[in-house]
Order: sequence, then structure tokens, then C-alpha cells
Amino acid sequence: MDVAQVLIDGKWRAADAEGTFHAENPATGQALPLEFPTSRWSDADSALAAATKAAAELRNVEPAKIAAFLEAYAANIEAAAPAIIAAAAEETALPVTPRLKDVELPRTTNQLRQAAAAASEESWRHATLDLEKNIRSCFAPVGPVVVFGPNNFPFAFNGVSGGDFAAAIAAGNPVIAKAHPLHPNTTRLLAEQALKAVEQAGLPPATVQLIYNVSNENGLKLVSDPRVGAIGFTGSRNAGLSLRRAAEEAGKSIFLEMSSINPVIFLPGALAERSEQLATELVDSCLAGAGQFCTSPNLFLAFETPQTEPFLAQIAKSFTERPSQPLLSAAGRKQLHQGVTALAAAGADLVTGGEMVPGDGYRYANTLLRTTAAAFLAAPHDLQREIFGNATLAVVVKNQEELESILRLLEGNLTGSVYSAKSGADDALYDATGALLREKVGRLLNDKMPTGVAVSPAMNHGGPFPSTANPRVTSVGIPTSIVRFAKLECYDAVRPERLPAILKDTITNPATWRSINGTLVKG
Amino acid sequence: MDVAQVLIDGKWRAADAEGTFHAENPATGQALPLEFPTSRWSDADSALAAATKAAAELRNVEPAKIAAFLEAYAANIEAAAPAIIAAAAEETALPVTPRLKDVELPRTTNQLRQAAAAASEESWRHATLDLEKNIRSCFAPVGPVVVFGPNNFPFAFNGVSGGDFAAAIAAGNPVIAKAHPLHPNTTRLLAEQALKAVEQAGLPPATVQLIYNVSNENGLKLVSDPRVGAIGFTGSRNAGLSLRRAAEEAGKSIFLEMSSINPVIFLPGALAERSEQLATELVDSCLAGAGQFCTSPNLFLAFETPQTEPFLAQIAKSFTERPSQPLLSAAGRKQLHQGVTALAAAGADLVTGGEMVPGDGYRYANTLLRTTAAAFLAAPHDLQREIFGNATLAVVVKNQEELESILRLLEGNLTGSVYSAKSGADDALYDATGALLREKVGRLLNDKMPTGVAVSPAMNHGGPFPSTANPRVTSVGIPTSIVRFAKLECYDAVRPERLPAILKDTITNPATWRSINGTLVKG
Repeated sequence: MDVAQVLIDGKWRAADAEGTFHAENPATGQALPLEFPTSRWSDADSALAAATKAAAELRNVEPAKIAAFLEAYAANIEAAAPAIIAAAAEETALPVTPRLKDVELPRTTNQLRQAAAAASEESWRHATLDLEKNIRSCFAPVGPVVVFGPNNFPFAFNGVSGGDFAAAIAAGNPVIAKAHPLHPNTTRLLAEQALKAVEQAGLPPATVQLIYNVSNENGLKLVSDPRVGAIGFTGSRNAGLSLRRAAEEAGKSIFLEMSSINPVIFLPGALAERSEQLATELVDSCLAGAGQFCTSPNLFLAFETPQTEPFLAQIAKSFTERPSQPLLSAAGRKQLHQGVTALAAAGADLVTGGEMVPGDGYRYANTLLRTTAAAFLAAPHDLQREIFGNATLAVVVKNQEELESILRLLEGNLTGSVYSAKSGADDALYDATGALLREKVGRLLNDKMPTGVAVSPAMNHGGPFPSTANPRVTSVGIPTSIVRFAKLECYDAVRPERLPAILKDTITNPATWRSINGTLVKG
Repeated sequence: MDVAQVLIDGKWRAADAEGTFHAENPATGQALPLEFPTSRWSDADSALAAATKAAAELRNVEPAKIAAFLEAYAANIEAAAPAIIAAAAEETALPVTPRLKDVELPRTTNQLRQAAAAASEESWRHATLDLEKNIRSCFAPVGPVVVFGPNNFPFAFNGVSGGDFAAAIAAGNPVIAKAHPLHPNTTRLLAEQALKAVEQAGLPPATVQLIYNVSNENGLKLVSDPRVGAIGFTGSRNAGLSLRRAAEEAGKSIFLEMSSINPVIFLPGALAERSEQLATELVDSCLAGAGQFCTSPNLFLAFETPQTEPFLAQIAKSFTERPSQPLLSAAGRKQLHQGVTALAAAGADLVTGGEMVPGDGYRYANTLLRTTAAAFLAAPHDLQREIFGNATLAVVVKNQEELESILRLLEGNLTGSVYSAKSGADDALYDATGALLREKVGRLLNDKMPTGVAVSPAMNHGGPFPSTANPRVTSVGIPTSIVRFAKLECYDAVRPERLPAILKDTITNPATWRSINGTLVKG
């Protein structure tokens, strides 16, 4: 049986493997045939050496070529879409339509094309010229970027094709992708298209490299290697914090998206107006992707009103009636069950679900728990535990004071949503509590569920700790996401012929915005 | 004897002191009369509580009022300048003219005024509107900012008046300043003017607060307190890294400027053309402020050419002939001597200096050490030790290969300078080595010494680790420095009347640049 090859310095070659693994089909629990290597340090070392060389070469590559690579890659993915989608469906059990084919794949190629446009336009570099003092600065590539993709988006956040990848490449860096071991074959197929695009665009061969898996120890070694420029990570809080400590001790910038419970607040007037519709919206959001979205609502708050019990009953009924979708892995299901058990132990009551679904695949019963504000306030840490999957906790609050107390104790989240009456009946309550929620979330929504993260320049897919480790940046939204993988470079009295093109007195790119003597100027 | 009062929540009051200290006059070594408190935790706790309230209030304050505060503060400092300058001269032994009166004080008020202009203009907020998707985002205040100022700039980097202070306030945050214990009275006098300006502008009383000193333990507790938004620190690497670990473990953003040896490279043609002039420039730069600048050249490299020995001899002669200026403290002089001793132990030869200057004040002989590239490459870690004061290390390199090897082993620095021949004789060498230096420094200079950090929008006073912990940001240069003390806030489908003014469809400020549907628009 052949073991899949890693992609190092433009060549697919046998890994220096210390072990192998198989992905599974989560819908059946069966191992898939392809065998993948867990690399020893030497593979990472080779990739870092090649990336260092590529990074230096990329410094002298025209932005148009980087854009051409991103465009070609998007086109290549589309051409190879059937095989890539089939692999992802097999490895994740996510539905082919609409999810993989109609939503996630187009989103991924769209991201790559937006990154191409930004790379080519160059305004993301924030070129700033002080002609009087002859000081100039701009963002420049930070060096080789290591990207760890999560389990839940095999395309859009994949280390070799997702948002961090696109941003790191657009900034002019080579990427070393660490595949998520739950979808290695999808990642391999994507990397094949990436390599083809590297060749088409004439970029250095090591611009895109791929390793499937490394030990935890080698993961820590990788993120703290002197040759690394920066790291992008999307995944669990424990893994993220562990990588972060290693990276930061070594002086490396690491951008993490870790955990978020995405509180949704239903103000009384909203429930009075449209509780049935809101229950459906909530259920749809909670169960999308079997609840395995970074922005899935793990917590919702409703006031004690005549509509509240029927509202909760409708949610419970839908949770019970709708079929459970397979989770991504056996380990994920085990963690979900541990989370539900921990919430119950901390004082939440199980309304429905709370158990494995027997039979094929990693299914868990759609789970609703509930508790009171008083109970939440008695165990705020334990009751705002992220539960990654199709489970959510309802908290019934008696009054504004209880809501405010809860909001003050919330940790940082990616999102927070407030539903209020169209009539304006909740406006005073919104005004009093919205500011508290604002401080705790990266994206504040009105009358809208948090799942669904539009690729928009105005998006913030980020938030206060521990949802990320840096509340100033977003991992989705171009061009803002690109700057993460850059460093600020200043040129003081540097001779004109030695300046990078973007900092010369006049530039050829008519699309680039620059700040010249304090004024923004285009072209 | 009265103990100086701390400034908490708009009131000067007695500290909850666990001890007291006196500053000294470094020119005489004598303690100054005023006694200052080292605060117990309760003072920090009170300041944090008041700052939390002020932060919430500041969210609803018009930018024009924040700008008015910064303007009023600058004017108040100018009105009180004679007393403030006298206090600083006494506490630092820095010359009144030109340093304190003609350079540092105007620079400080200029910074405050630039921050006022940026706060009022609001373009720093990077307002981004996607009207089609109805998603909007902008930078917003991060919450209470704690600023630790360094010992070497009593005005321009003071926690209560310097660059971090101005940036944090311009972003809309209250500041808790931790004075540097070497110039507490200067800080106290500045804070008096700040409080007056707070009252003049009608800002919340706790917008500016001051504590003189805390134990190391309470310092760590302060930076990891949940109420803190972010931290600015300028100082030593050990203190910085220790604060950083505590802050980041608690999920707090901390911006540090720590250490830098600021390499200066003299290419052969430059020395052939103008070695006498360059020796004078280097000596001026190394001895400015008794070498106690963040950008002081601690390391310079010259090629082995006929000019090199006369060049080094001229530097040694100037070092020997010029009087030593007092260092800021006895501890600083001790550390400088330890540094010089460590360099000698690591293989550097002492050319001149290397000893305390007897008599009044904390003087140390201007010190030149030298070594070879081979010796440097044998102990690269020990020989790129920061020596904070009037000492510098010359490395004589034989050829391009040696220079490249050294550049590859350099840690991150704030600055790097290259002097090359006007004739173009060094251009090939510059092209080959400039890129290596570029990767290691925040600001690259040509034919110019690194001391002197212009307050320009194009400035980068930052650099790769360990000069700072974040190569994307600068502590000098407005508006870029402001964003450090912000977080990115997104509004998704939020009702129009609930949007902050800067994100509404139309705004009243004609000066603000915003990105609307992907296009930059003013006003």
C-alpha cells in the first residue's frame, strides 16, 4: 500500500515518516483507503529551508505574478472540483449540495480571487511617504508562513487553500500548510492544483508546500523555528494556546482563531412579535454543519415572558425531530458529549438530546440544555464552555440586571447577536445592554444569526480573547486579513534607486492608494 | 516630610504605600528631596475601577473633545515648561539646552498635537462599509491602557505624556501611567497639566491617572487584570518579556519596545571617500544622550581597508577626549560596566574606556571595543548584547561573505544603517547585503545615523523581535501608532440608528477617509 507523498520544494516525494494514519468517513465510521504520513522533523526542516529561499525570491517577484498564481489556482480548483468535492464529502460527511459544491467551494475560489485583486492593487501595503523628511514605509512580506487549518472547513479554511493561505500568499510569503488529519486527501488534491498554479505563474517551487501531520512536539518546534515569519492557526483553544506559547516565546507572530460560543440574545419584544420564526432561525443556525461552525450559537438568552416557554418548546421539538448530521470524527463526538455532561454538571438541565445516536457514523442527538441566569451567574466559567457540535444552552433571564451581569462575565467571542422588536419596544433595553455586548464580540449582529461569514472587506472574523489572541485583526475579509502576514518596513534617507517600487516618488500602478505627505493619493 | 500623591479618578490623594523612594540627581549622585510612594495593589485596583468607568464614558465622547484635551495638554505643558524642564534636568542630568528645552519638549507637544489632529480626523479608524451586504467595521477603543515609560526620555516617552500615551488617548482610551522611578517629579508635574486639560476639555476624570511605582509582582498583576485593554511598555528586555508573558497569558495585547543594537555598516568606498566625517558622525551618534537612546549604535561594521585603522583610531581618540556625560542612574552605570565586561569576556578587545569615571555623578568612560568578524561569528549571541550607554563595538570584516554571515545571525533591531560611496563604488556590495539587513530591522537608513526618530506618519519605530514583539506596528508615527490601542469592531445588519456615527451612511466630518464598497472616499 502506497503512502501519500508530501509536497516539498515543488516536488511530491515520500515523507520521512514516523507513522501513518488514515482518514475516516464520518458517515460510516470506516477508515478510508489512502494512507498518509506523519512527518518527522526532517520534512519540516526541508520545507523551512526551501521556504526561506522562496521567501527571498518572492521579495523580487512582481505583485502581478502573485495575483496570477492566485487566479490560476482558483481556476484549477474549479476545473478539478468534482474530485475535490468527492474527497471532501467522503472525509467530512458534509453534504455535497448545497454545502460543499454550491457554498464552500465558490467561497474559496472567490477568496483566492479577492486576494489576487488585493495583491495586484497593493493598497494593502499602506505605502506612506513623507517626502519632506525623505522617510517612507510600507508593509512587506514577513517570511515563511505556517498555516494550520481546522477540521470544519475542508476548503475555505484549509491550510493550503483557505483564508489564511490566501492572505499569506497575497502578502508575498511562501506557505507551509499543515493539513488537518481529518481531511488529508482533500488537502492533497487541493495542493496538486496549487502546485500546478505555481508552475503556471512561474513562482518559486516552494511557494506552496504541504505536510500532512506532525507530532505535537514537532508542531511546537515548527512554530518556534527561527526561519518562520508568522503562523496562522484555526482550531481548538488548547492546541492554539500551546502553539501560541511556543511561538511567542520565540518571538514569532501567531494568529489564532480558537473558541467562541456566539451568544444570541432575544429581547422580549422580539419574542412577542415573532417567536416561531425566531425559533426556526435559531435551530437552523445551531444545526448548520452539525453545529461545527466557529460562529455556531452555543448560548442563547431569552427573557422570562409568556412567549418564552413555547419558544423553548418549539426549539426542543425541532431539535428532537430533525435528524442528526454526522459529526466530523469520533473524537469530536466524544468531546461534544463531555461538553454536554460538563454543562449538566455545572447546573444546566438537559431538555433534549445528550446522547450518542446509535448506528453508523458519528452522530449525536441534537441537544438543548437550559438554565437560569442565577445558575449561570453561579458558574459563569463552566457554563460558557464551547461545545463544538449540535448542542446549545438556553439561559432564561428575569430582568435587565441579570442580562447585564451575564454580559459583564462573558469571555471574548467572535460574534454576538441581538434580536429586538421591529416596533421599537425593545429599544431602551437594547441601548442599555448593547454596549456591554459590543465590548465582548468582534462582530455584532442585529436580528440575524451569526453563522454565515461573508467575505467582505468590512467583515471581522475575529474578536477579543479567547476567541482570538489579537482583537485588531480579522482572518476573513480582504485586504484587512493580509496585513497579519506582513511587517512594517521603513526607509529613512534611502537612495531613490534602492527603494522598492511602491515607495518611489512615482509609481506605475494606477490602482494603488498611497499616503503622500499626509494625503491619500491614488496611483 | 510629605509623600507625593498619586492621581486616581481625577483626584490627587495619598497613596496606599508599601514603601517610598527618592529620585537622584545623576550629575551629583545626591537624592532629591521629594519622597514618592510605591503603591500597594489597592491603588492599582482603584485606578482600574475608575478607568473602566471612564472607558465606557469615553466611548460616547465626541472625537473633537478628545482632540481638545490633547491640544489643551500641549499648551499647558508649554505654559509650565520652565518647572517641568527644571525637574527633568535635575532627575536625569540631561542638558536643558538643546536636549530638554529645544528638542524633547517641543517634540512631545508636537506629538500630542499630531495625535489631536488624528483623533479629530478619524481616518485612523479605517471605517469600512459594505453597503450591499450591510456589514460595516472600524477600529474602536480597546479599553484602559497601562503605559510604562522608560528611563531615557522624561517627556517624549513618558507614560503620562509620550507617544504611547498620545496614541492610547487618541484612540479613545483612558491611560493609567506608571511613572519611571528615575523621574517621578517630572512625571508628577506633567500629570498636573494633564489633569488640568482633562478638566478643561470636560473628559471623564479618570482619563489620565498616575501611579509612581509598584512591586514587580503588582506590575505583573496589573498587566494581566481583566479590566485592562492593552499595555504599552518601553524598557529593558528582561522586564518587557516578563510583563509580556503575564499579559499574553491573560489574553491582553502588550506592545513592547525592548532592545536594539542598531548596527551601522560602513562599506569600503564610503570610508575611502569620507572616513573623517563618518567617524565624527558615528561618535556624535554613539555619545548622544550618553548613548542612552533606543537607537544608539551599539555595533558598527567596517571592512578591512587602508582607511579602517585611521577611522577606528579617530573614533577612539574622540571617545577619549570628549567628556563623559552622566548616565541616568547608578544601576545603569553598573549594567553598562557589566555589559562591557561581558563583551570583553566574549572576545572583544577594549580600545578605550571600560571603567567608571571617578568623582561626582554616574559617569562612565566613553568606551570603544573592537573585534573581528571571525570572533563575532564564534560568539554571535554574546557579542550582540545591548549595552545601554556610551559604549560601542566595532567589528572589522574581511570580505562580503563575513558581512553576510554576520547579517544572517543578527537578531531583530529597530534600525540598521548602511554608509556607501557617493561614487557608486559600493553599489554591488549594497545590493548583495542590503536585503539581508532589511529583514533584520524596522528602519533601514542610508548614509545617516539611527539616532533621531522623526515624528512622521512614515516613521517605523519598531522592528522584528526582540526589538519589539510585533513587527507590524510602530510606537512613533501618527496615525499608525494609534491602532495598537484599538480593536476591530464589526456591525452586521445593525439597525442604522444604532450604528456609531463613523459607520452611518453619511457622516458629518468632511476630513474622514472611509472605504465604501471597496473605494476610498473622503467625508
